[in-house]
Amino acid sequence: MINQPFQFEDWLRTRGLRTESALDALLDGANTHPHRLHQAMRYAAQGGGKRIRPLLVYAAGELGTVGGESLDAALDAAAVAIECIHAYSLVHDDLPCMDDDDLRRGRPTVHKAFDEATALLVGDALQTRAFEVLANANTNANGDVQVRLSMIRSLASASGSRGMAGGQAIDLESVGKKLDLAGLKQMHAMKTGALLSCAVSLGGIAAQLSSTQMQHLATYSEALGLAFQIVDDILDATADSQTLGKTAGKDAANDKPTYVTLMGLDYAQQAANELQEIAIVSLASFGDEARALKALAGLVVKRDK
Amino acid sequence: MINQPFQFEDWLRTRGLRTESALDALLDGANTHPHRLHQAMRYAAQGGGKRIRPLLVYAAGELGTVGGESLDAALDAAAVAIECIHAYSLVHDDLPCMDDDDLRRGRPTVHKAFDEATALLVGDALQTRAFEVLANANTNANGDVQVRLSMIRSLASASGSRGMAGGQAIDLESVGKKLDLAGLKQMHAMKTGALLSCAVSLGGIAAQLSSTQMQHLATYSEALGLAFQIVDDILDATADSQTLGKTAGKDAANDKPTYVTLMGLDYAQQAANELQEIAIVSLASFGDEARALKALAGLVVKRDK
Repeated sequence: MINQPFQFEDWLRTRGLRTESALDALLDGANTHPHRLHQAMRYAAQGGGKRIRPLLVYAAGELGTVGGESLDAALDAAAVAIECIHAYSLVHDDLPCMDDDDLRRGRPTVHKAFDEATALLVGDALQTRAFEVLANANTNANGDVQVRLSMIRSLASASGSRGMAGGQAIDLESVGKKLDLAGLKQMHAMKTGALLSCAVSLGGIAAQLSSTQMQHLATYSEALGLAFQIVDDILDATADSQTLGKTAGKDAANDKPTYVTLMGLDYAQQAANELQEIAIVSLASFGDEARALKALAGLVVKRDK
Repeated sequence: MINQPFQFEDWLRTRGLRTESALDALLDGANTHPHRLHQAMRYAAQGGGKRIRPLLVYAAGELGTVGGESLDAALDAAAVAIECIHAYSLVHDDLPCMDDDDLRRGRPTVHKAFDEATALLVGDALQTRAFEVLANANTNANGDVQVRLSMIRSLASASGSRGMAGGQAIDLESVGKKLDLAGLKQMHAMKTGALLSCAVSLGGIAAQLSSTQMQHLATYSEALGLAFQIVDDILDATADSQTLGKTAGKDAANDKPTYVTLMGLDYAQQAANELQEIAIVSLASFGDEARALKALAGLVVKRDK
């Protein structure tokens, strides 16, 4: 077989379409009773976004040697589940009692487009749907069932009180306080890093990678997660709301510590570039198979929104 | 073995203690980082309550013929998971954008004892914990893994947008509207019935009952769920806040339709009694083994809070 050059743009487009198609298939239809709730759930989950987490799921899932329908179904379920968790966290984060944000992905936030009570339920039900999608294994084969249960454990651990939700709680407590760099890292490792790492893990679990391979992926994810947040802080400090599709400059307005305020803009950019290198190097043993994951690390660091 | 008379009070006491002990063991400790979130999660989940759902899990779990550690672990996980889902729904329900309630189980609600943002995260993280507890199977035996995945499917289906959360959404839309009896039944079947039925199902799944047995349990649960809600409406109309441990008379104040307003107090009480009979009769094929479930049906109808 001739080794064709890797066309990352093609890869991004096809996996992006696969994500949208999986979301459309695995979310309840907008005509499911009660209609308004299901419409609002689709509004929250299908409003665009970078889809970084599903892309990480698919990229990691391509590292395995076992393919087939069962893998495809597991990857689609994982992509949808992690995007549902991400979407739920954004909907709840935007509520008046949290960040009180009106704009998300260039559109009114869910509580603005619908109402607060509906936004609360949308977040709740999107979380439930994430676990339901993962639990709906198509076959009774023992391996599949183990994979699904393992994915559920990983997602719950990454998104719960010792992961994403815990990071949110620390973030709440940190407003007005002077977190140092170590405190900031720990908060972000929980608030955003855990779910990004989980995306990579879910792909690896679905592809039934070895524990050594999973460890390499964990090193990649840790660097990627940190780079992601540093770039987020850079963009919050330098880009405008229209480019971001969400309110820019919020951290400074809320007197929140960020990598930019703690490290300075130049050093933050340099750190992001170095983390990209670390992420790529950690994938060395996978060779060419990991090219999508490597390219995604570049995308995370070079993005403009 | 001498067939000893069934002491329901003893059964209630031991299963109640088992519930509290399982919650204590399977929730994160209050000294887990971040502390305040984990303290608030324990405040929400360990503040008493009737523990009807865990009791239903244990009672249904006792109908099986396979016992042992694996069953015990599955029942404890199910009892904690369903109580975490119930507790999360109460915390979110009490928020200002929903029912705006200050009192729950005789104590300040979570957003009053802590703050709104923490209450939001407490509900989110309790839901996650429910699925995490179910996914943490102790063994790799195929049967156990299937049981756990099946329980997760059941819990997600009962609590998500086509179950409990969907019922909440319908409830929101119904304020000031004139729901008829059929509409009221459908709303409550989703809002409270689905999770009560799920409690019974989780016990049955853990005990690996046959599909015929599961169908009998479903008939029982449907009658029980409806009776539960009718009695709730009777108590809301007749009892005081101190006895209930929550604000009484809220439905009338909010002009919400209830079984009492639609059927009248006498007929509502009669319907509850008849449903208790239906629930008990549906368990006939289980014989004496179902005595705890039968007694629980009585408890649901005869309770004073």
